[in-house]
Amino acid sequence: MATDILDTLEATIRARRSADPSTSYVAKLTHKGRAKIAQKLGEEAVEAAIAAVQDDRAGLTGEAADLIFHLLVLLADMGLTLDDVRAELARREGVSGIDEKASRPT
Amino acid sequence: MATDILDTLEATIRARRSADPSTSYVAKLTHKGRAKIAQKLGEEAVEAAIAAVQDDRAGLTGEAADLIFHLLVLLADMGLTLDDVRAELARREGVSGIDEKASRPT
Amino acid sequence: MATDILDTLEATIRARRSADPSTSYVAKLTHKGRAKIAQKLGEEAVEAAIAAVQDDRAGLTGEAADLIFHLLVLLADMGLTLDDVRAELARREGVSGIDEKASRPT
Amino acid sequence: MATDILDTLEATIRARRSADPSTSYVAKLTHKGRAKIAQKLGEEAVEAAIAAVQDDRAGLTGEAADLIFHLLVLLADMGLTLDDVRAELARREGVSGIDEKASRPT
Repeated sequence: MATDILDTLEATIRARRSADPSTSYVAKLTHKGRAKIAQKLGEEAVEAAIAAVQDDRAGLTGEAADLIFHLLVLLADMGLTLDDVRAELARREGVSGIDEKASRPT
Repeated sequence: MATDILDTLEATIRARRSADPSTSYVAKLTHKGRAKIAQKLGEEAVEAAIAAVQDDRAGLTGEAADLIFHLLVLLADMGLTLDDVRAELARREGVSGIDEKASRPT
Repeated sequence: MATDILDTLEATIRARRSADPSTSYVAKLTHKGRAKIAQKLGEEAVEAAIAAVQDDRAGLTGEAADLIFHLLVLLADMGLTLDDVRAELARREGVSGIDEKASRPT
Repeated sequence: MATDILDTLEATIRARRSADPSTSYVAKLTHKGRAKIAQKLGEEAVEAAIAAVQDDRAGLTGEAADLIFHLLVLLADMGLTLDDVRAELARREGVSGIDEKASRPT
């Protein structure tokens, strides 16, 4: 079975958290603390939103990659994994098999 | 090979884009237009950032699920797929095999 | 001296914080807590950013009003006033009289 | 009548838009375009939201100053003024004299 790049990336991020902040972006950002990582996530989402409104497909692809990257850094900092998020999505998908709308936020 | 829930979700989202907006959240949001989907992405990121700063693990899990969900809706609206984002992440991972930092935004 | 609507609005917000949440939006939002007010601030900024990129002048005017409104609600919740922010801006303006750039974030 | 620092700042920003980008932050940011200014507004709001949730009063004061500064830069780029936003807030305040809630977004 092929390995999802998302999981490969997550493993890389986890390994780099304790690397040298002078050579690893993940270590450097992690060293700055939770609030800084959370801030970066928000910033990347704003950039993704703007790229989308500008109908910039290449731009959104890059910003979406940045967004997922920083989400993985934040999840790792919280002791969470992408699989935790997958489980939540699977739970909702199961719940919403018949009525998608009921499980979505209003 | 097991199917990733992320891809299952993406397929579901694509199928529901043209569903009845009165019964499908995806159809309803898509009907409101690109800017509204982009806005939701930004909002979910802000909520995720706040949950993380509050050290709310269950909260972040839910917000991360919301964030990925809306990212998939936005990608679909742009004619992009999660695989496009995976390809971008793989490209960077390849580039940054030796020097992660060089390929990261400054 | 004419009273700035911003200060009138701030006084109104402060008075309404302890009003009945069923009749006052300020009381209702304040009752939901700091994180919810902060979340609203982030959301309004995303909406303002999108309106600007769409070159929607009427839209930005409305979103800017929403943004300032929620900033005042958040400041009040933190025991801060618009005058505290004015003082900070005046301090920077004084500092940057000759060299604006030096006092701006990099 | 004392001049509001907000209006002084707005005048300064308008004057600096056409300054040398190598010496003026406003000129430099304006030169990068509307989307970049909008992005900065979103980023400052995320930072303000995080500072508030962290109960960081000095931090929020600084971020609120940054937020207003960038809002003024964005308004100027759209050919709008703080007075346009004041007029919108005054209109709402008048409308909502009796029933604040009715004029607020749901």
